[in-house]
Amino acid sequence: MKIAIIGTGRVGSAIAFALVVRRLADELVLVGRTPGSGVGDAVDLMHASAFSKQMAVSAGGVEAVAGSDIVILAASAAGVTLDRMDELRANVGLFKELVPAVVRAAPGALILVVTNPVDVMTYLAIRYSGLPAERVMGTGTLIDTARYRSLLSEHVGIDTHDIRAYILGEHGPSQFAALSVASAGGERLGTSDPMVAELADRARDEGGRVIRAKGYTNYAIAGAVAMLVEAIVNNTRSVFPVSTLVSNYCGVSDVCLSVPAVVGRGGILKVLRVDLDSREVELLKKSAAVVRGAIEKCG
Amino acid sequence: MKIAIIGTGRVGSAIAFALVVRRLADELVLVGRTPGSGVGDAVDLMHASAFSKQMAVSAGGVEAVAGSDIVILAASAAGVTLDRMDELRANVGLFKELVPAVVRAAPGALILVVTNPVDVMTYLAIRYSGLPAERVMGTGTLIDTARYRSLLSEHVGIDTHDIRAYILGEHGPSQFAALSVASAGGERLGTSDPMVAELADRARDEGGRVIRAKGYTNYAIAGAVAMLVEAIVNNTRSVFPVSTLVSNYCGVSDVCLSVPAVVGRGGILKVLRVDLDSREVELLKKSAAVVRGAIEKCG
Amino acid sequence: MKIAIIGTGRVGSAIAFALVVRRLADELVLVGRTPGSGVGDAVDLMHASAFSKQMAVSAGGVEAVAGSDIVILAASAAGVTLDRMDELRANVGLFKELVPAVVRAAPGALILVVTNPVDVMTYLAIRYSGLPAERVMGTGTLIDTARYRSLLSEHVGIDTHDIRAYILGEHGPSQFAALSVASAGGERLGTSDPMVAELADRARDEGGRVIRAKGYTNYAIAGAVAMLVEAIVNNTRSVFPVSTLVSNYCGVSDVCLSVPAVVGRGGILKVLRVDLDSREVELLKKSAAVVRGAIEKCG
Amino acid sequence: MKIAIIGTGRVGSAIAFALVVRRLADELVLVGRTPGSGVGDAVDLMHASAFSKQMAVSAGGVEAVAGSDIVILAASAAGVTLDRMDELRANVGLFKELVPAVVRAAPGALILVVTNPVDVMTYLAIRYSGLPAERVMGTGTLIDTARYRSLLSEHVGIDTHDIRAYILGEHGPSQFAALSVASAGGERLGTSDPMVAELADRARDEGGRVIRAKGYTNYAIAGAVAMLVEAIVNNTRSVFPVSTLVSNYCGVSDVCLSVPAVVGRGGILKVLRVDLDSREVELLKKSAAVVRGAIEKCG
Repeated sequence: MKIAIIGTGRVGSAIAFALVVRRLADELVLVGRTPGSGVGDAVDLMHASAFSKQMAVSAGGVEAVAGSDIVILAASAAGVTLDRMDELRANVGLFKELVPAVVRAAPGALILVVTNPVDVMTYLAIRYSGLPAERVMGTGTLIDTARYRSLLSEHVGIDTHDIRAYILGEHGPSQFAALSVASAGGERLGTSDPMVAELADRARDEGGRVIRAKGYTNYAIAGAVAMLVEAIVNNTRSVFPVSTLVSNYCGVSDVCLSVPAVVGRGGILKVLRVDLDSREVELLKKSAAVVRGAIEKCG
Repeated sequence: MKIAIIGTGRVGSAIAFALVVRRLADELVLVGRTPGSGVGDAVDLMHASAFSKQMAVSAGGVEAVAGSDIVILAASAAGVTLDRMDELRANVGLFKELVPAVVRAAPGALILVVTNPVDVMTYLAIRYSGLPAERVMGTGTLIDTARYRSLLSEHVGIDTHDIRAYILGEHGPSQFAALSVASAGGERLGTSDPMVAELADRARDEGGRVIRAKGYTNYAIAGAVAMLVEAIVNNTRSVFPVSTLVSNYCGVSDVCLSVPAVVGRGGILKVLRVDLDSREVELLKKSAAVVRGAIEKCG
Repeated sequence: MKIAIIGTGRVGSAIAFALVVRRLADELVLVGRTPGSGVGDAVDLMHASAFSKQMAVSAGGVEAVAGSDIVILAASAAGVTLDRMDELRANVGLFKELVPAVVRAAPGALILVVTNPVDVMTYLAIRYSGLPAERVMGTGTLIDTARYRSLLSEHVGIDTHDIRAYILGEHGPSQFAALSVASAGGERLGTSDPMVAELADRARDEGGRVIRAKGYTNYAIAGAVAMLVEAIVNNTRSVFPVSTLVSNYCGVSDVCLSVPAVVGRGGILKVLRVDLDSREVELLKKSAAVVRGAIEKCG
Repeated sequence: MKIAIIGTGRVGSAIAFALVVRRLADELVLVGRTPGSGVGDAVDLMHASAFSKQMAVSAGGVEAVAGSDIVILAASAAGVTLDRMDELRANVGLFKELVPAVVRAAPGALILVVTNPVDVMTYLAIRYSGLPAERVMGTGTLIDTARYRSLLSEHVGIDTHDIRAYILGEHGPSQFAALSVASAGGERLGTSDPMVAELADRARDEGGRVIRAKGYTNYAIAGAVAMLVEAIVNNTRSVFPVSTLVSNYCGVSDVCLSVPAVVGRGGILKVLRVDLDSREVELLKKSAAVVRGAIEKCG
């Protein structure tokens, strides 16, 4: 299993370390702005792999992704002085150049998009790559959902693995919790206990807490990516909320946002239809409109 | 973590091996009909533990369970010539003597009942032990549920961990699938696809297939017990269908049968209420009546 | 990874269970005396795999081993009334028929010999299979060595993984401990402490203790086989004492006995030469003579 | 298991992430220069723990280490403009204040020193803490040894776990490989093959390669610390070369440097005496003199 990570900043670097510690690759390639920019991390990570499972780690240009099974797009053009709209335009420009080069070098790879705004970038990665939609996915609300399940787990005293709850839609302010299908061990959570909705609000705000404190997030997203990579590598066919191109999902089409999907070696194996109530369908549509607006602005 | 297994036949022995391979104890005690009957297995298992995690394994009489955190009751009085009713009476006699001796030796232990008919024996283990009901549980329909989820997983192409489906009631012919709450990744399974009900029937018959072929089952039950032990040892608070004393559960009381329950270091931490439909409530009541009848016969 | 186990008695069955619990195969085939004799275990084990990693387990005749990556020979012709020499002759007859059939069905498989006397049977498996010697190995003194390391670990208070000590030669009474190379964490163990030699004697007698108590051993050998299978499946290139065809090893040739060897996907990747002292070289030669004698008797 | 990490720079932060991914704590406390400086990482890591094992992660002042089982000292006073000697003096000042405060807050903790120059800082941590020497250890040449074993493993085609080779002495330029005791699977490596010595040189230079490329190392040291923490938490009694206070070790006393030691819940359980040859004993003495000189300069 060869995995390439494009982007050697704090996010790409933490993802690489998570993959090393969890032994999820045989070969790892780090691609930074210049072929040399990932060298220090590559050698350091190769040493680190002596403490888990020996791995070949190297740095290189985009052509070094050749032969990769998975390419993780964690690059960002953003500098600190840009505003949000400028950041988006800069990342669009980056992807327009980067994604076709990645596909030329590794035409058989799955693409995993981490760069924000992740729903827009996933949509553009599909367009620029020309790949079938099931081979490109974004981390979407996987982190938000994991945070939400942790909070619910603590609240009801039940293992997170038995909590079935989703944050869906945009990985951003318009996301929403699918309260009507939330359950713990098969017991419904959603309606009577006001904490269930309140914890969804708290989960949405948690990322901001980290950004306000340290200026960025990297460890949680690295954990999320490692989990997706594990599902792909071992073809577990696990269900995660990930950003995917939806087609007539509760009436929403031609936009990327997070819905529950089955993930395995082939990428997105299936999109699941959960029983959203009418309020949630409205929230999904609104969230889709937000993402669609952003896509159009950068067209 | 000290674990004692009472019963050194094929079931107890396979449970012990599963615990060794999965490294789930520091100390393991095997209690057979005579203090010496588990010695061969004990030494063999201690050698086997060199290939996973070194464990102290010994054989002894019931007094050797002293200090155990978990006591697994897998003993059976049954000889091959007995009919089912005689078997039940013989096991009742066995438990009447055994359970109080276990509690005297290890008053702080959780009790995990494997001996069949497991729902009756769990009920009697509670009565004879005088322990709070949450500290005694039976393996119940955990195996049936695991088989069912495997079949569903294969049918829908989704990881078993994302299948939420339960076989509830008696671990026996009157068990039933809670179709109305069955889901895969949060997507409902139950109503439209006839295979979902059919696979529940198949899951119920699978145990019989093994018994017809080799005369007994031991590996599946050993896997199930190892899973429960792991939940207890690591206090995971996972949800399993296990045989527990129910009290006003859909109108059923004072009988042991399998319903979803949260399992952790303290035993049964909570019984969950899933939304059974009226047909399923009827099936639960019928199943409860079957177990109750058996309990009364052996009183 | 497809693994076939020939022999569905207590040893083959325990090996199968160990492979299921340790998730070491995708597909498992059990081959007994008749195509039907493994069916009960196969279904039971498939159910058990729901508690670790879902596995396809089936029973069949020798032709069902087709496509296997590893074939484990754990069959034995022995009935209870035979004496040791008759047992050997019966197993020779069994292998003469079985091994060529296995190789016809699965020409690309590694062969792992468990049947006793394991050194003789490994030698015959190489001869009857016509395979290169590196693709056939016997479990040899792996169990004896594991027991010895456990005893040493307890004696010196150091993790077994840091104990480097070998029982070499025949898996039988003529085996010996290579005391001159025994070390713990790099510190020599061998000469000054009399317990180091004494524990080797104890390790050799431990198997007999189990046989006297329960009439056979199965769990320790199952653990040993699972460890070898793991080394092969993951191509770890770990070093184990296994029974292999030696060629000018301290002057010993054309016999199978246990020496330290590197095990990986290709089988025996390399035989290691440890610095035996002159006494140990004598013991190795004597042990080789014992095995050679047994091979000649059954020619 | 509560673990505190003092120092929230790149090293402390990577250590924390490694502990989260490897599930090695129940509670983690990050202590930075101000009580608030670790808050962003703490919340981010708590989110990340949802993808491995839910962990309580918080930031605080030194008093927050109260109740810790292990305290990891990864703080450094060094700014970029200081020269090496100034750096040492600044770190000495830091430890003089920090270590007594740590011991007051967590008198029962083991102390694990990461701050460089690690041998000097380990010596001072023992002196300033007043703790018995076995409860304070430095990461020493564990990284150098791991790199060396990886290179040897690749060179001889044998699993790193079967490579027994040590880099001993100072974690710095005066370190040396104990070639006379180097072995692979019990087969001697040291004398005939010139690559064995050459790879030791390469291992020593590898850290510098990372520092030249990215200005610091953090992932390899984080992997090393996670491995030591695992040995302590699980009381594995594994053998590692770690920096410890030696007493008449080949004639060397009253200085900290790396020799093979048994690590478990109690810290350094035993120092092992490997058979160094006379050349290596000289190298050990020289290395000790280097560390001793540095200690005296900063007294």
